[in-house]
Amino acid sequence: SNKSTSTQKPKVQKPFVLIGGGTASYAAAKAIKEKDPLANVIIIAEEAQAPYMRPPLSKELWFSEDPKVTQTLVFKDWQGHERETIYQDASLYEVLQDAAGSDTPSEKVKLLLNKRVVKLNIDTHTVTLDDGSEIYYNKVLLATGGSPKKFPGVQDANVTTFRSIEDFKLLDSKAKEGAHIAVVGGGFLGSELAVALAHREGNIKVTQVFPEEGNMANVFPTYLTKWTTSKVRDLGVDVKSNKSIKSINSGKDGKVVLDLGDEKLSVDHVVVAIGLEPRVDLARQAGLEIDEKRAGVVVNAELEARSDVFAAGDVVSFHDVQLGRRRIEHHDHAVLSGRHAGENMIGGSKPFTHQSMFWSDLGPEIGYEAVGLVDSQLSTVSVWAKATSKDTPAVGAGSEAESPRTAALGSDAPISAAPVSPIQVDLKDEKFGKGLVFYVRDQKIVGLLLFNVFGKVQEARDIINAGYTSDKIDGLLKQFDLHSESH
Amino acid sequence: SNKSTSTQKPKVQKPFVLIGGGTASYAAAKAIKEKDPLANVIIIAEEAQAPYMRPPLSKELWFSEDPKVTQTLVFKDWQGHERETIYQDASLYEVLQDAAGSDTPSEKVKLLLNKRVVKLNIDTHTVTLDDGSEIYYNKVLLATGGSPKKFPGVQDANVTTFRSIEDFKLLDSKAKEGAHIAVVGGGFLGSELAVALAHREGNIKVTQVFPEEGNMANVFPTYLTKWTTSKVRDLGVDVKSNKSIKSINSGKDGKVVLDLGDEKLSVDHVVVAIGLEPRVDLARQAGLEIDEKRAGVVVNAELEARSDVFAAGDVVSFHDVQLGRRRIEHHDHAVLSGRHAGENMIGGSKPFTHQSMFWSDLGPEIGYEAVGLVDSQLSTVSVWAKATSKDTPAVGAGSEAESPRTAALGSDAPISAAPVSPIQVDLKDEKFGKGLVFYVRDQKIVGLLLFNVFGKVQEARDIINAGYTSDKIDGLLKQFDLHSESH
Ligand SMILES: Cc1cc2nc3c(=O)[nH]c(=O)nc-3n(C[C@H](O)[C@H](O)[C@H](O)COP(=O)(O)OP(=O)(O)OC[C@H]3O[C@@H](n4cnc5c(N)ncnc54)[C@H](O)[C@@H]3O)c2cc1C
Ligand SMILES: Cc1cc2nc3c(=O)[nH]c(=O)nc-3n(C[C@H](O)[C@H](O)[C@H](O)COP(=O)(O)OP(=O)(O)OC[C@H]3O[C@@H](n4cnc5c(N)ncnc54)[C@H](O)[C@@H]3O)c2cc1C
Ligand SMILES: NC(=O)c1ccc[n+]([C@@H]2O[C@H](COP(=O)([O-])OP(=O)(O)OC[C@H]3O[C@@H](n4cnc5c(N)ncnc54)[C@H](O)[C@@H]3O)[C@@H](O)[C@H]2O)c1
Ligand SMILES: NC(=O)c1ccc[n+]([C@@H]2O[C@H](COP(=O)([O-])OP(=O)(O)OC[C@H]3O[C@@H](n4cnc5c(N)ncnc54)[C@H](O)[C@@H]3O)[C@@H](O)[C@H]2O)c1
Repeated sequence: SNKSTSTQKPKVQKPFVLIGGGTASYAAAKAIKEKDPLANVIIIAEEAQAPYMRPPLSKELWFSEDPKVTQTLVFKDWQGHERETIYQDASLYEVLQDAAGSDTPSEKVKLLLNKRVVKLNIDTHTVTLDDGSEIYYNKVLLATGGSPKKFPGVQDANVTTFRSIEDFKLLDSKAKEGAHIAVVGGGFLGSELAVALAHREGNIKVTQVFPEEGNMANVFPTYLTKWTTSKVRDLGVDVKSNKSIKSINSGKDGKVVLDLGDEKLSVDHVVVAIGLEPRVDLARQAGLEIDEKRAGVVVNAELEARSDVFAAGDVVSFHDVQLGRRRIEHHDHAVLSGRHAGENMIGGSKPFTHQSMFWSDLGPEIGYEAVGLVDSQLSTVSVWAKATSKDTPAVGAGSEAESPRTAALGSDAPISAAPVSPIQVDLKDEKFGKGLVFYVRDQKIVGLLLFNVFGKVQEARDIINAGYTSDKIDGLLKQFDLHSESH
Repeated sequence: SNKSTSTQKPKVQKPFVLIGGGTASYAAAKAIKEKDPLANVIIIAEEAQAPYMRPPLSKELWFSEDPKVTQTLVFKDWQGHERETIYQDASLYEVLQDAAGSDTPSEKVKLLLNKRVVKLNIDTHTVTLDDGSEIYYNKVLLATGGSPKKFPGVQDANVTTFRSIEDFKLLDSKAKEGAHIAVVGGGFLGSELAVALAHREGNIKVTQVFPEEGNMANVFPTYLTKWTTSKVRDLGVDVKSNKSIKSINSGKDGKVVLDLGDEKLSVDHVVVAIGLEPRVDLARQAGLEIDEKRAGVVVNAELEARSDVFAAGDVVSFHDVQLGRRRIEHHDHAVLSGRHAGENMIGGSKPFTHQSMFWSDLGPEIGYEAVGLVDSQLSTVSVWAKATSKDTPAVGAGSEAESPRTAALGSDAPISAAPVSPIQVDLKDEKFGKGLVFYVRDQKIVGLLLFNVFGKVQEARDIINAGYTSDKIDGLLKQFDLHSESH
């Protein structure tokens, strides 16, 4: 047991050190404090900000009608409630200035900002900070997330990546009257940002460039990728698919020139959204195993890498007992894996079996949620139906008491959800109005994409956890009421 | 802590359950008892025999001059000392008849023979035996080793595999006057057995068949494989390399017919030595991760798969902090990983950093030892010198107080070593008399083969652990005295 048995001395427990100030660390801190309010929990983060959620940065904050949104970072969820991007104000933490406070008692979670952990010393159970000081840990969590990938050698102030609040503020300042902005990348971030930028007032020209056949091609089956791309184009994005970037060069008057081989694009700003590089340096240097295939820190099903060393969130490669080894770069996974790691750090040894979900929205007509392995390389079986005006992200999410779009972080935690869009829903092209895509591997259903089908994440989880074979798909359809309108 | 604090009751600790009656389990039991002589250690094995070592089964026992060797299983090591194949007699254990004795105190290691574990229940911390009973564990070790691979569909009493004492006795009974025996496989077992059989008195014909270019082709660089094959032929083995088996059929008069495509071989007996299949069923069914690439039970650097669940020996896929993820099918690894798992089970959390070695002998002229990754797919750098009569397995091993050829299992444990051979050493073909092969990956030395170079395993270990780059090879050679004779 970690608890001091002496009654004279204050009950200072050995520190639970959480490296990283993101969602995974925040969720772990909450979980540890829930089990033991006196636990000594320290979040160490290199940024100046208290932990915050990233999803609104490419969605809600762009659709807000509040002109001060860039300062307040407050947005409205589907129920019209005001939510904060930052989970809780720094004043609700015990803010430390340096390592000194690591062993004093506090009922609050301790927050050590502006400090980078530069070394994890497993033998001595310590972390070394960039100011040279050391903090002893009882248990440590690696929740270092990742850094956006970059094009090597490109150095231009008008070519940026997008992950933080600062990045949001910068892009917001660039997206002004008449600007031409190029978004490179056709994945989650590139597609969401392209749609968000195109929604902006002020005659902003948005060009999206990526090598695949269409938006979200790594997730969606080809036909759905193509259809989605046409919808993204309808929303005002000039999508240039099947294009690879030959070079990015600084042009005249602060312009940036993208060479696409057969054409050159001269733009005011370029946002590079070409994927994430998990931050595994600390782990690698500490001798932990790095998953060379998935590029994360290897842990077992309990999210433990070595005795007393855990990992969660974007950085973790874990053993999913149902689906095999995985690394997941989504918000709900950061919440659930962070929470689970926290619970195991304070004394559990349970496998992480909760199937996380993710969601995305591309404008008012396309919203999707998914559970399990949704990789367009897998074979898929899909079922489609006409969408009605009830089958939009806004209406769908609003129909549930608690949005399934993110695991709640606690009673006071905000629920992230897509914005109430002012754009009129137009459902003329109904081909892929709403539907289900089942992803199949070795005859088993391993993933399920709910396309404009809302409030059914738990059903999807149950299907994945049951490990049904693909011949069961027909029988499984009923519970999704795909054709409820036509009955 | 596991220890009962009551002084009235006998100090029965919660059981350390070791699944498997092989070297890894035996080494773990020793390690646990060394740290706590009162620990409740239970070895469960499906065989009728107390744990034994396998190396003599394909070497020493065939070269013994004692006509009763097949019964006694006693052999002479290089120092001429008598050694037993079985580590210690069953009478030195507390032999259990069933699960009943699992929670009574004993200073001896408990041995439950003739019982197979059919289920590992991680949630309830129990194992289920084939008689339906359950044993609770405090910590459990999976040391289930592996089964020899077979040709599917072949069922003939004269086609056998080789792993156990029973297999040795059976092959011994087949290797009689005038018999023609085919050995399928050119790896460790096939090559050792072919040479052993060819050494037998009684005009025995030995044909070895395998698809590679020569003996040990998966380990040795091509030139060394070819040279070794010519030596194996000199020892009387009819080596048919580059041959794949099209079919194995029962012929007339109990003969077995091997179809090699361009020829058919009719023999009295076939020994199939085509590799090992780790026994991962228990682990897979329990939801543990299976390394699909290396086919073992995945554990971390501490040899832990999940809290309280460890694995060691042939069955384990572990994280080697120096060389990356590995699975190793050798005796010394079973000893060292078993011992290490035992130490961590009783309270440690150290990474398994001890580099195991392995050795093999192919007759009196060829003996080799190796450390690290020795895979002929890697690029190699090698250095050769003339061998003298001092550079033979016999003389080499004898020159050390304690043979490096196997990690000792304790003060009373036998040391396995190659036999003192009666064959006259003949060194006419000196091309690869003795030498070193350095195996290189990503510019780093990751493996070292000591070919007829003896007593240098520790030096090899140090080189692997230092992670030298390949440009350091020249400087590293001195310590091996390759040319000591010519100085
Ligand atoms: C714009 C955007 C929108 C997104 N939208 C969605 C969405 O709609 N739905 C969804 O499911 N997912 C979404 N995601 C993904 C989701 O935000 C991530 O999966 C999640 O943030 C991962 O959380 P994390 O805690 O693992 O890592 P992060 O959030 O990256 O946090 C890691 C933290 O560790 C810190 N750190 C790293 N190394 C050190 C060190 N050595 N010392 C100190 N601190 C360190 C970093 O500074 C950072 O604070 C979005 C991501 C972005 C960028
Ligand atoms: C003939 C031969 C010669 C060899 N020579 C050498 C050599 O010279 N040098 C070298 O380095 N290596 C050598 N090896 C390899 C070495 O013997 C193995 O690496 C070593 O035996 C592995 O030990 P282990 O304990 O992991 O597995 P094993 O020795 O296979 O033991 C596993 C045990 O588990 C039992 N078991 C499995 N499942 C269950 C269950 N469900 N319930 C109960 N019991 C179960 C099995 O019956 C067996 O007793 C040789 C191997 C053979 C076969
Ligand atoms: N709704 C969500 O879940 C959501 C939303 C936004 C961001 N995120 C997360 O943020 C991170 C960053 O998102 P992302 O979209 O950059 O990653 P991503 O992995 O989703 O997409 C990467 C995209 O980069 C593009 N790309 C790769 N190499 C390229 C190259 N050389 N040239 C041009 N394009 C190239 C491809 O189009 C690919 O689709 C990810 O972890 C993502 O999961 C998630
Ligand atoms: N000195 C030692 O360390 C030693 C000695 C004996 C046995 N062993 C161990 O015993 C186990 C069994 O040894 P092994 O030699 O069978 O395994 P191995 O992996 O060393 O060799 C397998 C061999 O099987 C042959 N093979 C594979 N598929 C074949 C096919 N379809 N047809 C014909 N040949 C085929 C190949 O020649 C290959 O070299 C291994 O774990 C081995 O490490 C070790």
